[in-house]
Amino acid sequence: MQDVLDLTRDLIARRSVTPADAGCLPLIAGRLERLGFRIEHLRFNDVDNLWATHGNGGPVLAFLGHTDVVPSGPEESWATPPFEPTERDGMLYGRGAADMKGSVAAMVVALERFVTAHPGHDGTVGLLLTSDEEGVALHGVRQVVEHFAATGQRIDYCVVGEPSAKSTLGDLIRVGRRGSLSLTLTVHGVQGHVAYPEKAKNPIHAFAPALAALAAERWDEGNADFPPTSFQVSNINAGTGANNVIPGELVALVNWRFSTASTADGLRERAEAILAAHGVDYAAQWHLSGHPFLATPGGRLREVVAGVCRDLCGIEPEQSTGGGTSDGRFIAPMGAEVIELGPVNATIHKVDECVSVADLRKLPDLYEAICLRML
Amino acid sequence: MQDVLDLTRDLIARRSVTPADAGCLPLIAGRLERLGFRIEHLRFNDVDNLWATHGNGGPVLAFLGHTDVVPSGPEESWATPPFEPTERDGMLYGRGAADMKGSVAAMVVALERFVTAHPGHDGTVGLLLTSDEEGVALHGVRQVVEHFAATGQRIDYCVVGEPSAKSTLGDLIRVGRRGSLSLTLTVHGVQGHVAYPEKAKNPIHAFAPALAALAAERWDEGNADFPPTSFQVSNINAGTGANNVIPGELVALVNWRFSTASTADGLRERAEAILAAHGVDYAAQWHLSGHPFLATPGGRLREVVAGVCRDLCGIEPEQSTGGGTSDGRFIAPMGAEVIELGPVNATIHKVDECVSVADLRKLPDLYEAICLRML
Repeated sequence: MQDVLDLTRDLIARRSVTPADAGCLPLIAGRLERLGFRIEHLRFNDVDNLWATHGNGGPVLAFLGHTDVVPSGPEESWATPPFEPTERDGMLYGRGAADMKGSVAAMVVALERFVTAHPGHDGTVGLLLTSDEEGVALHGVRQVVEHFAATGQRIDYCVVGEPSAKSTLGDLIRVGRRGSLSLTLTVHGVQGHVAYPEKAKNPIHAFAPALAALAAERWDEGNADFPPTSFQVSNINAGTGANNVIPGELVALVNWRFSTASTADGLRERAEAILAAHGVDYAAQWHLSGHPFLATPGGRLREVVAGVCRDLCGIEPEQSTGGGTSDGRFIAPMGAEVIELGPVNATIHKVDECVSVADLRKLPDLYEAICLRML
Repeated sequence: MQDVLDLTRDLIARRSVTPADAGCLPLIAGRLERLGFRIEHLRFNDVDNLWATHGNGGPVLAFLGHTDVVPSGPEESWATPPFEPTERDGMLYGRGAADMKGSVAAMVVALERFVTAHPGHDGTVGLLLTSDEEGVALHGVRQVVEHFAATGQRIDYCVVGEPSAKSTLGDLIRVGRRGSLSLTLTVHGVQGHVAYPEKAKNPIHAFAPALAALAAERWDEGNADFPPTSFQVSNINAGTGANNVIPGELVALVNWRFSTASTADGLRERAEAILAAHGVDYAAQWHLSGHPFLATPGGRLREVVAGVCRDLCGIEPEQSTGGGTSDGRFIAPMGAEVIELGPVNATIHKVDECVSVADLRKLPDLYEAICLRML
């Protein structure tokens, strides 16, 4: 059994910039296959996905990760080359060290130890890896879950390896994520010359009071696990460039990050009511990226993961639903309890991304302990 | 003395697309010089301007026009080629027929008749022509007026030949124009990720209430001669294109067309007060294109021009300050009373621009009558 640090280095050295896998999945599949895992290579379009399982029946505990990484940016900005893993002052540097090749390596090592020590464990343990998480994420876990629905594959519990910790391993676990609802709003006006405003209808003016009302709206108060739903207009554009033309249309991109205190349908109805109340003439294009999900307080996996942090790291972990979204949004609707546990996320997507060597050495212990306590 | 129709045709045939003059001004200068006019060619940068005067002392009555035209657009869209003057069903077709080579020809013919019949007339009659009215208008009348200020040249009364009529010659004269004040507004925010709104400051949200207040503001009630001041946001832009980024800044272009019931300084102060009241963090770049101007009701030229329409066209003309702006904005601040009188403007800047042959034949009579009654 290879050391977790060696495997992490091996994975970092592979330039798997999203959606490329650069051989990471076959390497892992080969190792797990030798220990008796069943291997399914699920390739959708140009995306490689791997589903490796051991054991039979329920409960099904899956570990979820991705082998693709975000681009490094200019390599000369890095202290050492991003795809040459380098240890320095107790940290391992390289693109993907924290997000999330370290977690992937730790999951592999943990699963190897667990099935070797407990070949007849209860239920099924699985590892689901994709090479399309950092990009458009259309042919990764989203599509794997559709495949699972077709084949009847269930997942009861899912541990996602996303880097969750704030300053030290085990100090924060994610017990859910907010939903993300987007709207492309086109406000219709009538183009004209600014000298003849009576012949035109300015969509910027028509939208302004509704925009102010939308921005001032308190969508919900959040709840014990979620902050209040957040509304942001990310883009607004109208105008021909000329200062003497009243534009004929305005386009705004809008995004809600919403808690379980709201629903996508509810937000949509309220936004449309505000637009209607202000008499806005518009067309709306809605896109739901993901419903919010939450591991119920007191849920089995949530208790086990928190307990593992407490027992192995000596920390009572913060149980958070903050941040963006994750591939957990695809797994949760399967009826699975989803918890995210990984290393410190301070350097992800930045130059000189790194992971603590000590945390990395401890992470397989945490994942192995979860297997032991769950199955 | 050449017929006004012949001279209009001759001018249309010259492709004087702004700021080109294509020989129009030398042609006119030659004709007037033969009748004793003093000729000044005022060339600023690449722009030709002509100032031709006859007589001495005050009052100074100036006719103002331009020889440049807007581009024709695709020539194949025209029924007959835009630079080949063509008579059809009582109309003369060609680019500049109405805006404003017809008026220029009529002014020349009127002045020729007037000085021939009244060589010892009172005061001074002048013709001021530029080839930079339709374009950037930096080196046309704007600069001529600066030159006049330096040389002590005064103008007491000014007749602008811009096409003012709605459906028949004499039905509308312009007795003033609104001012135009522009603002480029940059609203400062703090860029961030939509998932972490607490770390960002969205300039779209910050600006929305102020925008609604500005759009709802009643700047003035106008007055007997002007409609209320009009406020228009012509352009608004913010966002990176991505829907997960809160933009760091918003830029809006704003324009006021304002009556003599407001001042540029007053509008600026009120807009800045609204922005300040809503706590908007912004930078403002102001540009005043022109103050509003108005021929005082009961003013001598205003009365004479209205009387000429009444007597020669049999119409009581509407006295309007509508529409965009004109080169009159540069002459009015000299202390001149400015009135605009020209042919029907229905086809200006369009394909198949045309002028009524009957109106064109009558226009020199109107301009000549103004000379007779004023000097």
